[in-house]
Amino acid sequence: MADSSASAASPVSLPRTSESETLKRIRHTFSHVMAMAVQRLFPKAQVTIGPWIDYGFYYDFDHPEPFTEQDLKAIKKEMIKIIKQGLPLVREEVSREEAKRRIEALGEPYKLEILADLQEPITLYHLGDKWWDLCAGPHVETTKDLHPKAFDLESVAGAYWRGDSQRAQLQRIYGTAWETPEQLAEYKRRRQEAKRRDHRKLGKELGLFLFADEVGPGLPLWTPKGTILRSTLEDFLKQEQVSRGYLPVVTPHIGRVELFKISGHWQKYKDDLFPMMGDSEDEGFVLKAMNCPFHVQIYKSVLRSYRDLPLRLAEFGTVYRYEQSGELGGLTRVRGFTQDDAHLFVTPEQLDDEFLKVVDLIQATLKALKLDNAFRARLSFRDPDLDKYIGDDAAWTKAENAIRRAVETLGMDHFEGIGEAAFYGPKLDFIVTDALEREWQLGTVQVDYNLPQRFELEYVAEDGSRQRPVMIHRAPFGSLERLIGILIEEYAGDFPLWLAPVQVRLLPVTSEQLGYSNQVADQLRSQGVRVEVDTSGDRLGKMIRNAEKAKIPVMAVIGAKEVAANSLSVRTRASGELGTLPVAGVVQRLSDAIAQRQDF
Amino acid sequence: MADSSASAASPVSLPRTSESETLKRIRHTFSHVMAMAVQRLFPKAQVTIGPWIDYGFYYDFDHPEPFTEQDLKAIKKEMIKIIKQGLPLVREEVSREEAKRRIEALGEPYKLEILADLQEPITLYHLGDKWWDLCAGPHVETTKDLHPKAFDLESVAGAYWRGDSQRAQLQRIYGTAWETPEQLAEYKRRRQEAKRRDHRKLGKELGLFLFADEVGPGLPLWTPKGTILRSTLEDFLKQEQVSRGYLPVVTPHIGRVELFKISGHWQKYKDDLFPMMGDSEDEGFVLKAMNCPFHVQIYKSVLRSYRDLPLRLAEFGTVYRYEQSGELGGLTRVRGFTQDDAHLFVTPEQLDDEFLKVVDLIQATLKALKLDNAFRARLSFRDPDLDKYIGDDAAWTKAENAIRRAVETLGMDHFEGIGEAAFYGPKLDFIVTDALEREWQLGTVQVDYNLPQRFELEYVAEDGSRQRPVMIHRAPFGSLERLIGILIEEYAGDFPLWLAPVQVRLLPVTSEQLGYSNQVADQLRSQGVRVEVDTSGDRLGKMIRNAEKAKIPVMAVIGAKEVAANSLSVRTRASGELGTLPVAGVVQRLSDAIAQRQDF
Repeated sequence: MADSSASAASPVSLPRTSESETLKRIRHTFSHVMAMAVQRLFPKAQVTIGPWIDYGFYYDFDHPEPFTEQDLKAIKKEMIKIIKQGLPLVREEVSREEAKRRIEALGEPYKLEILADLQEPITLYHLGDKWWDLCAGPHVETTKDLHPKAFDLESVAGAYWRGDSQRAQLQRIYGTAWETPEQLAEYKRRRQEAKRRDHRKLGKELGLFLFADEVGPGLPLWTPKGTILRSTLEDFLKQEQVSRGYLPVVTPHIGRVELFKISGHWQKYKDDLFPMMGDSEDEGFVLKAMNCPFHVQIYKSVLRSYRDLPLRLAEFGTVYRYEQSGELGGLTRVRGFTQDDAHLFVTPEQLDDEFLKVVDLIQATLKALKLDNAFRARLSFRDPDLDKYIGDDAAWTKAENAIRRAVETLGMDHFEGIGEAAFYGPKLDFIVTDALEREWQLGTVQVDYNLPQRFELEYVAEDGSRQRPVMIHRAPFGSLERLIGILIEEYAGDFPLWLAPVQVRLLPVTSEQLGYSNQVADQLRSQGVRVEVDTSGDRLGKMIRNAEKAKIPVMAVIGAKEVAANSLSVRTRASGELGTLPVAGVVQRLSDAIAQRQDF
Repeated sequence: MADSSASAASPVSLPRTSESETLKRIRHTFSHVMAMAVQRLFPKAQVTIGPWIDYGFYYDFDHPEPFTEQDLKAIKKEMIKIIKQGLPLVREEVSREEAKRRIEALGEPYKLEILADLQEPITLYHLGDKWWDLCAGPHVETTKDLHPKAFDLESVAGAYWRGDSQRAQLQRIYGTAWETPEQLAEYKRRRQEAKRRDHRKLGKELGLFLFADEVGPGLPLWTPKGTILRSTLEDFLKQEQVSRGYLPVVTPHIGRVELFKISGHWQKYKDDLFPMMGDSEDEGFVLKAMNCPFHVQIYKSVLRSYRDLPLRLAEFGTVYRYEQSGELGGLTRVRGFTQDDAHLFVTPEQLDDEFLKVVDLIQATLKALKLDNAFRARLSFRDPDLDKYIGDDAAWTKAENAIRRAVETLGMDHFEGIGEAAFYGPKLDFIVTDALEREWQLGTVQVDYNLPQRFELEYVAEDGSRQRPVMIHRAPFGSLERLIGILIEEYAGDFPLWLAPVQVRLLPVTSEQLGYSNQVADQLRSQGVRVEVDTSGDRLGKMIRNAEKAKIPVMAVIGAKEVAANSLSVRTRASGELGTLPVAGVVQRLSDAIAQRQDF
């Protein structure tokens, strides 16, 4: 994928616990082994609960002092000892009274509380003959089935008993566990890599965006550099869209509650909206969470003829959704974001063809972003058992069929996601796999027979009759914020030349070359190249390191020799040292490479 | 100015009533003359109040039937009769009891209510010896001082007695009156012209923007054509700003109440904000009415050095202000608008120079829009007697002095507007006079020592000490919505070539030339020219008239002859018939003219 350092997807597969029956047993047993080790080393520690999680396990202990790094090492060592002992795991069914008796003998009050919630038969799992816990299993047969080099203890965190901040504060130890040491190594590599690529960390280091407590959680502010990323992506898509007959529009960020009642958002989506402004629903306004009801108003503002269709209204529309603040993290989950939204108003006859054109645009977009190697299409249909949708069955069936036809026509790799539809219609979602094999939803296309009906949209058909158009909702990026978060991680901050906030940094060897450097910078700027001159006065080695750290794709060293020859010594991230080249040639090649979204 | 049909400001001056003592008397007397005429013709009509207004007068009558057009003609005729009679206007002072006695004799209950609110001495004005009204004057001496050909009755409207919808519905007759028939003629010409140019009417006819009841008053939605106007203006200014070292940023449309408490907006400006979202000020959010507190957060996100200053952060930021819906009208007064905002963070030493550069940018902007022939600069200072400002006296004095210095350095035509300052600092406002001699506030520059203090902004000075920057707020357009409203009226919809939503329309004489026309259109489009092909199949004359009606600056007729010669018959709004020209030359000349913002 985009970043060569993680280019080949690793051949070592790393299943989630839910995907592997074996790992379910292994990870669960590891949690018991850890609990036993802890109680061997810290006899005062009381055990509470210890489940498997996605890639490992944890256990919550009641222990007066927090466990230290040193403690974790000792616990790990003790666990290895237990594993090597080859202790058997034995299930036993007992009556509630018997369980109670045994717990009281141990003197562990948390277990009593747990017992109270269990149904008979009560099951225990013994680990050897000196340790047991209330547990439904399943487990491996003996600790010999655990690999002593395929696990690690990762961290300690505070956790309240039963998640209740009024109750005891427990110590939670997290571990990861695998079938083989190779899996553990690959897991650690990916963790490390994910940390290195974390867009929150890189976003700060590269100065792309920020959050401010006074502004509020989930509301990013974009610095000058981050704004270049945004506008470069916007400009790319605008150009693609204009050439495909889209018409940009601009609509307000708020509307009367009435508007969202007609669209159905108020009834079905109210909890995801920011609180209403004003006291009464009649007069109140809400922040928009969707652009569609506004584009519908533009459609409705004049009587449309079949000759006007398809009408493709596009807007980079910033919308607001009231996500719980606990769910917010960086750019991938925010409260305010800009959709690269468009709504196509089409005749029923135009639907299939327009849908295919939209898919083509999304594929072209993913290709430009080098995200097209690994994506799947999800047919996000409604769950017929749920009550959260609007519109009649016939409309849903027509819309779902249109999506299915498109996917089959194109022979796309796809799967169905029942219950993933929007409340007003089914979607085709593009699920992209990133360099760390994580899946992200990006672009989306939706077919909608419902809003046209709710807003009573019409057009005059060729025979003079009034007909109802179909709407297509679509967003190739999905959300600009989310996309940028994903791109930062995918590229590990090494943006391709055309996207890089600073494309070139000029490094004058001494202050003597400063004037010449500024002239070259002006030449580059006049061709639309984003260029900086390093005016720090640092030594060349440090200037080069700083440019690398700032992840600038092209550097040009300018010494006395270069000034004399009207040239630049160029080194690029993509191609390394290019040697000394004439200025005019570099300017031309650079601006060509940027225009064609190529490396230099 | 921009539109040649109103190019020369008329030599006939049209003062507002408040600007002329003579007109005050004339217009006031006209209202009495009208009331007398009405009561002569409609003896049942009761008079209430009748003041002068900006360019005329009105009188409210209690009369069972609404007055018709026919009635107005009769009233006007009667008024001319009264004027020609040369009746004297005589002031009389009476006691409250005497006034009451006389009113009761007339049987006019409204006058009794009015009397109750008056202080003694009560004054009456007699018009001849048969008609009088409670009135403080002043009036002309005799109706001979009124010109019978310098007035007109304009309209009838319903009005409630004392503006109270629970009380009687009255008939208000509006009139206009002048010293001379020439003034009346000029006034009528301008009214006619203003009607022709009304941006609400033209906006609809040209399909530029719309309002929707479901979205709410004062919240315009921009159609594809209107969006071209917006983005062309934005692109123009963005380019100007980038070349002057501005850095675009993007910030959210909402923020926590806390943010606006620190800035002071919450305390001083709360009534102009949309209602808070949420129940408590601690957790609540508000729509932003200003971008400054957000740009301040970006400034604060890293420690700045004197080397980073001036830092010029720019954003086309859409803000929302809760104007009373009664105040809303078209684009010149809206509830949501986009400011071409920027905030410059400068050292105290940089202030004067940066201020001058901002003024230079505003002047360049007005020039590009051809609004630079008639503007004045208003020094909008605080009113020291009012309590609505924040910050200490010293900061205000420094800021006001900086503005005064700039204006004097540039020798600009200016005047002081005491009480016109923002609550946090003084402003320099650019007041533009339009083709109808109406004044509009456009661009603004503000100097601000207060927000940097409230947000505790700092930079590291050359000597290593921490210093406080000064902020400059500025917006050359002011508001994009307001500017476009003004431009529509100023140009009467005839946008200059570079701004026109559609720049060229191709008119194929028969369907035989349709293919060739589409080829030419593609050629123009590839050079960024906005072009349409008339596919109506109408006759040439009708196509030409339609293109004129749509105010498209360039048309090209394409018949068999043009196809054979690979040419176009061009006619433009600016230059008339240009004859038959080769296609390639037209494409080149057009794209050059657009790039240089020139006519074709």
